[in-house]
Amino acid sequence: MVRRYVRQMADGDVVEEVYLTTDKQLRANRNGNLYLQLELRDRTGAISARMWNAGEHLFKSFDAGDFLFVKGKVQLFQGALQMILNSLERVGAEGVDLADFLPHTEQDVSKLYERLRTHMMRLANPHLRALAECFLMDADFVRAFCRAPAGVRVHHAYLGGLLEHVVTLMDLADRVAPLYPDLDRDLLLMGVFLHDVGKVRELGYDRAFSYTDEGQLIGHVVIGVEMLNEKVRQVPDLTGEPFPVEILLRLKHLIVSHHGTLEHGSPKLPMTPEAIALHHLDNLDAKVHIFLRDIREDGNKSSAWTQFNQALQRRLFKGGGGEADGSLLAGDEA
Amino acid sequence: MVRRYVRQMADGDVVEEVYLTTDKQLRANRNGNLYLQLELRDRTGAISARMWNAGEHLFKSFDAGDFLFVKGKVQLFQGALQMILNSLERVGAEGVDLADFLPHTEQDVSKLYERLRTHMMRLANPHLRALAECFLMDADFVRAFCRAPAGVRVHHAYLGGLLEHVVTLMDLADRVAPLYPDLDRDLLLMGVFLHDVGKVRELGYDRAFSYTDEGQLIGHVVIGVEMLNEKVRQVPDLTGEPFPVEILLRLKHLIVSHHGTLEHGSPKLPMTPEAIALHHLDNLDAKVHIFLRDIREDGNKSSAWTQFNQALQRRLFKGGGGEADGSLLAGDEA
Amino acid sequence: MVRRYVRQMADGDVVEEVYLTTDKQLRANRNGNLYLQLELRDRTGAISARMWNAGEHLFKSFDAGDFLFVKGKVQLFQGALQMILNSLERVGAEGVDLADFLPHTEQDVSKLYERLRTHMMRLANPHLRALAECFLMDADFVRAFCRAPAGVRVHHAYLGGLLEHVVTLMDLADRVAPLYPDLDRDLLLMGVFLHDVGKVRELGYDRAFSYTDEGQLIGHVVIGVEMLNEKVRQVPDLTGEPFPVEILLRLKHLIVSHHGTLEHGSPKLPMTPEAIALHHLDNLDAKVHIFLRDIREDGNKSSAWTQFNQALQRRLFKGGGGEADGSLLAGDEA
Amino acid sequence: MVRRYVRQMADGDVVEEVYLTTDKQLRANRNGNLYLQLELRDRTGAISARMWNAGEHLFKSFDAGDFLFVKGKVQLFQGALQMILNSLERVGAEGVDLADFLPHTEQDVSKLYERLRTHMMRLANPHLRALAECFLMDADFVRAFCRAPAGVRVHHAYLGGLLEHVVTLMDLADRVAPLYPDLDRDLLLMGVFLHDVGKVRELGYDRAFSYTDEGQLIGHVVIGVEMLNEKVRQVPDLTGEPFPVEILLRLKHLIVSHHGTLEHGSPKLPMTPEAIALHHLDNLDAKVHIFLRDIREDGNKSSAWTQFNQALQRRLFKGGGGEADGSLLAGDEA
Amino acid sequence: MVRRYVRQMADGDVVEEVYLTTDKQLRANRNGNLYLQLELRDRTGAISARMWNAGEHLFKSFDAGDFLFVKGKVQLFQGALQMILNSLERVGAEGVDLADFLPHTEQDVSKLYERLRTHMMRLANPHLRALAECFLMDADFVRAFCRAPAGVRVHHAYLGGLLEHVVTLMDLADRVAPLYPDLDRDLLLMGVFLHDVGKVRELGYDRAFSYTDEGQLIGHVVIGVEMLNEKVRQVPDLTGEPFPVEILLRLKHLIVSHHGTLEHGSPKLPMTPEAIALHHLDNLDAKVHIFLRDIREDGNKSSAWTQFNQALQRRLFKGGGGEADGSLLAGDEA
Amino acid sequence: MVRRYVRQMADGDVVEEVYLTTDKQLRANRNGNLYLQLELRDRTGAISARMWNAGEHLFKSFDAGDFLFVKGKVQLFQGALQMILNSLERVGAEGVDLADFLPHTEQDVSKLYERLRTHMMRLANPHLRALAECFLMDADFVRAFCRAPAGVRVHHAYLGGLLEHVVTLMDLADRVAPLYPDLDRDLLLMGVFLHDVGKVRELGYDRAFSYTDEGQLIGHVVIGVEMLNEKVRQVPDLTGEPFPVEILLRLKHLIVSHHGTLEHGSPKLPMTPEAIALHHLDNLDAKVHIFLRDIREDGNKSSAWTQFNQALQRRLFKGGGGEADGSLLAGDEA
Repeated sequence: MVRRYVRQMADGDVVEEVYLTTDKQLRANRNGNLYLQLELRDRTGAISARMWNAGEHLFKSFDAGDFLFVKGKVQLFQGALQMILNSLERVGAEGVDLADFLPHTEQDVSKLYERLRTHMMRLANPHLRALAECFLMDADFVRAFCRAPAGVRVHHAYLGGLLEHVVTLMDLADRVAPLYPDLDRDLLLMGVFLHDVGKVRELGYDRAFSYTDEGQLIGHVVIGVEMLNEKVRQVPDLTGEPFPVEILLRLKHLIVSHHGTLEHGSPKLPMTPEAIALHHLDNLDAKVHIFLRDIREDGNKSSAWTQFNQALQRRLFKGGGGEADGSLLAGDEA
Repeated sequence: MVRRYVRQMADGDVVEEVYLTTDKQLRANRNGNLYLQLELRDRTGAISARMWNAGEHLFKSFDAGDFLFVKGKVQLFQGALQMILNSLERVGAEGVDLADFLPHTEQDVSKLYERLRTHMMRLANPHLRALAECFLMDADFVRAFCRAPAGVRVHHAYLGGLLEHVVTLMDLADRVAPLYPDLDRDLLLMGVFLHDVGKVRELGYDRAFSYTDEGQLIGHVVIGVEMLNEKVRQVPDLTGEPFPVEILLRLKHLIVSHHGTLEHGSPKLPMTPEAIALHHLDNLDAKVHIFLRDIREDGNKSSAWTQFNQALQRRLFKGGGGEADGSLLAGDEA
Repeated sequence: MVRRYVRQMADGDVVEEVYLTTDKQLRANRNGNLYLQLELRDRTGAISARMWNAGEHLFKSFDAGDFLFVKGKVQLFQGALQMILNSLERVGAEGVDLADFLPHTEQDVSKLYERLRTHMMRLANPHLRALAECFLMDADFVRAFCRAPAGVRVHHAYLGGLLEHVVTLMDLADRVAPLYPDLDRDLLLMGVFLHDVGKVRELGYDRAFSYTDEGQLIGHVVIGVEMLNEKVRQVPDLTGEPFPVEILLRLKHLIVSHHGTLEHGSPKLPMTPEAIALHHLDNLDAKVHIFLRDIREDGNKSSAWTQFNQALQRRLFKGGGGEADGSLLAGDEA
Repeated sequence: MVRRYVRQMADGDVVEEVYLTTDKQLRANRNGNLYLQLELRDRTGAISARMWNAGEHLFKSFDAGDFLFVKGKVQLFQGALQMILNSLERVGAEGVDLADFLPHTEQDVSKLYERLRTHMMRLANPHLRALAECFLMDADFVRAFCRAPAGVRVHHAYLGGLLEHVVTLMDLADRVAPLYPDLDRDLLLMGVFLHDVGKVRELGYDRAFSYTDEGQLIGHVVIGVEMLNEKVRQVPDLTGEPFPVEILLRLKHLIVSHHGTLEHGSPKLPMTPEAIALHHLDNLDAKVHIFLRDIREDGNKSSAWTQFNQALQRRLFKGGGGEADGSLLAGDEA
Repeated sequence: MVRRYVRQMADGDVVEEVYLTTDKQLRANRNGNLYLQLELRDRTGAISARMWNAGEHLFKSFDAGDFLFVKGKVQLFQGALQMILNSLERVGAEGVDLADFLPHTEQDVSKLYERLRTHMMRLANPHLRALAECFLMDADFVRAFCRAPAGVRVHHAYLGGLLEHVVTLMDLADRVAPLYPDLDRDLLLMGVFLHDVGKVRELGYDRAFSYTDEGQLIGHVVIGVEMLNEKVRQVPDLTGEPFPVEILLRLKHLIVSHHGTLEHGSPKLPMTPEAIALHHLDNLDAKVHIFLRDIREDGNKSSAWTQFNQALQRRLFKGGGGEADGSLLAGDEA
Repeated sequence: MVRRYVRQMADGDVVEEVYLTTDKQLRANRNGNLYLQLELRDRTGAISARMWNAGEHLFKSFDAGDFLFVKGKVQLFQGALQMILNSLERVGAEGVDLADFLPHTEQDVSKLYERLRTHMMRLANPHLRALAECFLMDADFVRAFCRAPAGVRVHHAYLGGLLEHVVTLMDLADRVAPLYPDLDRDLLLMGVFLHDVGKVRELGYDRAFSYTDEGQLIGHVVIGVEMLNEKVRQVPDLTGEPFPVEILLRLKHLIVSHHGTLEHGSPKLPMTPEAIALHHLDNLDAKVHIFLRDIREDGNKSSAWTQFNQALQRRLFKGGGGEADGSLLAGDEA
């Protein structure tokens, strides 16, 4: 049977489906009767749900983070939809398809991975190609790399988002590099692969997107250097030669400087042509991706402008006529 | 009959009046009964309104932005007034006095305009005086200039606000210029007139204050230069001479630099005495206007301090005794 | 009888106790019946309270800031506790122990004061020791100094907090100074004593923590210099010598520069070794104090991280396992 | 005869050649004898020159900015080369090849222009293609556009530099656009063409690179909008239709926002996908160009690092071994 | 006999005059012969001077800061004038007119002071008028206030500069206040008088302009509050009433906040209408003064632009034709 | 024989000594005769030297970075000492005591190391103590750690400077920790040891202080984490247990965050009490060290103020009377 996703619900719908519960509270109404207030979620969104006349026993029968099979009815309340539940029951994670509960890339992951692999096997420099192999031979790494989001919230924040971002960047680098013959194409492509590699350990992406303790305390920049150090040790087994010191230094520098400025968390400014190119390409892909997505997903058809985007500190122009409404940035005034 | 304004309403009032509706929602209460939730507005403020047992038919009979003739009763709810409606009916814009629905200057617009005209006709430089005439001969422009607010929210945000701001600035410039004999009085006054002229196209002020698409995408600085270019082409017809290149450059510079710094949206820093004087006079009038208004309009008589002003990032001292209360800026602590 | 503190309340408790009321409103419910909505507070926290079917007479029988003896029942509502009152009655401040209504240091104030006194009497420089005596002989000052918080919200925001902060800083200075023999230990200790002395007038701390008008308009830096000027005039009576000009200058400089940078409200940068040492020690104690307190007081045992601290713009790591949850700073993303 | 360029000179050379004089001074040595001190320049660099026993008559026979035919000898002095002149004579600009005196692009301008033309004629949108034609039909404009540098000092600071920068950007845009199907390729390419078009009036590039008064007071952003307004008026003659309002707005926005932030002189932030893409591509090309040039032109073969670049606030890594020397940024220390 | 000022000197002049020596060095030339290198100065400028074959005896016969009677000849050397001395002799300060050695206002100090006095005696508030009297009755203060510069370098940096700045500001305030009826005119004028009053102790202006130790360590903002405190104590003797607490607070706030932001050295932001007006008027006068002076004094008649002004971070437009030269801010490039 | 140091030289001295040459140039004087211009250096400073009538043969007989045995005479020239050489001869590094050519700590390195060792052996946590042992057992590391400066220029810029800084910080931490019982003393001390450990590879300190390529491209923060990773792998051999994951994370975090803010090169903000304490203690020691050194070493006895310190952006008050001179920061003016 086809799953009923949160985004598809409408006022009046009757629902029997499994959702991830991400928040639960036991409350009393004005008459002192207890009810449950939950947040239910799948990969398309979240909805709040209430179950009247619920007791402490039911409340303790599950935890936030569990999957619940619920029966209920969708209702419009204070401008938003909510679900009134008739029953709920905890179900084990084994019975559910996790892919239903976290957003994932709309692209085909195996094709993305093939493009990644192709780019890496085309590297002309044998040391870099061997390094690439060391990463791709590590099945655990590949699994994580294909699954990780590129971020928790700002851009490519869905399963496979990291892979999608990196592969698009490789395509970009592949097209841009020929315009600058002095640029070291292999270094740039390897830099693209490595720059965010630390995110597979920085982020958690099992049931919800989050930062791991390591991610929060150390960050993907330093983790990325650690991961590079681990793999580079294996390269001489493949090439029969020591890995060139200067290339290693340049790779670490690509990771370390890719945020472009200290304020954005790079402990070093880009100081090689490949590093500055990587930084600007990374920025280009991330920003264009956000702009196009915000415009595509903006629900309000009656305005020529998107909702205010907090991270960008601006609204975007969708066009198609009409006046901008009055809730624009006060900062524009003199 | 005298209009019943939003600011005059009190708990228990019975109201029959026309308001602008700026938000509408159809909601269901806990029992599944539908009701309408609206925002009603006139130039003195806004109030939320509910109409119980309303259906989709009524909901679709009007749009946000329409005028509604409503009958209902005012009631205190959760610390604020709201209206419970018994009936509502859409009325056309032709039947209403738009002046009732947008705040406007407390000064007499025709007198303000006379002061503007007098200042401009006193310009000694024949090119500048002819330029002024070209603007004042354009009836559409004059109508817009007399109607536009100076901003959507921060200062002089009411109909006629732009005119009021510009005329006060001209009075200021007229009094200040004699103290600096080397300052070109005519340039300064023309700069005052032109600096915000682009706001007549940057802002929308028909039913609510907003930014137009053009205003949001280009801004009044660039629009102002465009408007100057349009008018300056007509000047030689009046003077029989080409408009002096350097004067035109200085006028554009006055528009382009009047925000004073790049961060505030001026693509060029002030580089002439008239430009730096205009910038500081503009700032003086805007800030003193806000300070005096915030203090005058602050409703809380029991505190020596106004509410926190987000744009100024501070509270203002009204004086008259008492202690400052505890909700002051934490940033003051060491 | 033991007092029932706000922090001890649980769902279902019956309460008869005195609280400070810090907010009061008269509201109507949907049926038009009036009720009172209050905020009740003691030194352990605040709770909102409702009294149904209350009239204007009762509403006017007390003011925000008064103490109320209330009877009622505690109830869980929308995830938080609230109290439903059966009766309330204003009581005079004379009948209550003010210490119950403002948070205070957990340390023994008289012992803290003894440590302060000891440090000051050990000053080797006779002028500085005499200056210390002039402050300590002033009973009003000592009372205020022992009672003032060090801030309204950010750090040491409780009665006795200023004293606790200053004494800890003196202990620090006492231990650190011997490592830098060229540092003038007496100047540094006197600087520690004086740097925040203006807070006794900057802050109000009778019934709630707030800024006084003087505190808000002038600030403790300038007030501190004024207080120093008042006391230094009395020193020659004790020493029989004029107070050395350069020492006075250095003391004022210690007060004026202790925030370290202009942006943090010091009109002058630290320009003496003692001034720079004071600035960094002050910072050290304030920050370590906040970090340890946030971690100690964080209620959520299931997370390795504290709540987001607005003033620090970060969450703190408590450790003990688990993943960081997803509500971390978006700013960490690239 | 082959020209003797400044960059080719060596200690002991005898020179007879024409140079542009960019500075002249009449000085007295310790014995009171007068001598001329000049700066001579061609497109490869500058050298200082002295002529002993020169009098006021000779000094007044030419001005800075004139071309001089000089005879003299090259000499090493205090680590730099200088010329000791035996004779000098002013020559008219008509007799010299201006191309010898200003640096110009190493690429073939007519080929660059052909690429520009090709890109523009491939625009699918008829309005934009017609607009492109209006620019390309204007021979004066094309001449200036092919000659202008992209800047006075920082990047592409040579004749033809603007054209080279724009054509490279068009190639970039052409390759990048297909990766983002929702991006409007035509708008982006037209934005690339227009973004710096105002530089043909902002900069002076007859005998030396400079800002014009208009450039300094108004800037190429506003000038670019003016130039667009002029040309767009002619488009309907070609298309027989009015130029679409929204497209014009989007084009102006591309010009106005291309610096990306207010601090960098854009009065508006990019708010369309094409505008953000243009900003990042512009940045990419400018920065990669500077990095590659600095590394290529760095004369010091014994260091792995370039000289410190003031605009970038860093030195660049050339590699090839060796230690970084000690004159690195002190800011790196903790 | 008319004094020969530094600014009047020309190549070849023979000079016999007294100058202030502000730097002295004993050097050896390449042959090992010793010579004196001095800087000589009067209120119109400085010139370097050499005396050949001078010995240690002569070198020790005077100190930097002494007045010297010198005989010598003016000579052009490396583009600048220098003096070759034949003799020098120390003269006492009693024999010289100090006014010859420090720049002073071009206005008549006694007339400026009369305007100050008139403004202050017109204050309607008796407490403020009495406070003004307390300052004006203090002859030492009046002497210093009429003599002090408003700054060491940036604006009004000449004897009488403080008085000139304050009186111009009072004229400004007098003309501007009537446009804002809610502004307290008396407070504003008293604020103008007090805002920089601390500069009489902050600056040294006996033989050269400098900061005093007190000025450097504490600053004129805090000193100004100290001076106000001293005088306000005497006011009740004149008025027979205590000085109103709130007015005193407002006056201190005017001093403390007049720099407008923390970064500019004000420990508090302006929080009253008079304080914000004072801040902007102060800025207006200082900036317009600098702009007009830079343009008036710029020596280079062949450029439409002034020299780069470091404090303003820009060059100013003088106009009158010509191109801007190439040494403009690189920051203008994209 | 006692070495003749640069700092001891006086006008007229005859010198026969070995110096490090750090710059060499071959120049021609006005008559075309060649001479050598060198910079000679030892650990007390640098002096420039000339050798007249030198030819290309001699010039090529040595390189910058070589040691030269020179004979010559010291002479005052243009206010500074220089040496006129009669002969020079390259000598091998084996014959010289390197300690003579780089500044080193005035403290006894072996005693400093003993204090370090003692602190580390007192760590109560067995894992941390074992980790300390792993570092101290590595003789190459210990040698480098005892020799490295703490910086190239700003603070502790001399051989042994890193050790001195770290040991002082350990003493500080040892005294401060008991005042905050909740602070993990062992973690803090280990953090002190590790925070700058990467500097042994970041800096070059053989013949002059510099950044290594690795130091410049990656920085000591990331290098420090790499070094920790290397050593921590060895710990289980000593303890027989895996190294606790959370402790390792906390140690890395201490390294990564010790600069306190992103702008200062820390990719993560301090998020543990030990990390914030380390940051502030590090700052305290570095700044107090600089302040005391600048005041101690300032040569100008006639001023109460030190020279302007570029890194601190201020001058320091030495006291002892006198006026501050006029060359103070213009930024202090309003």
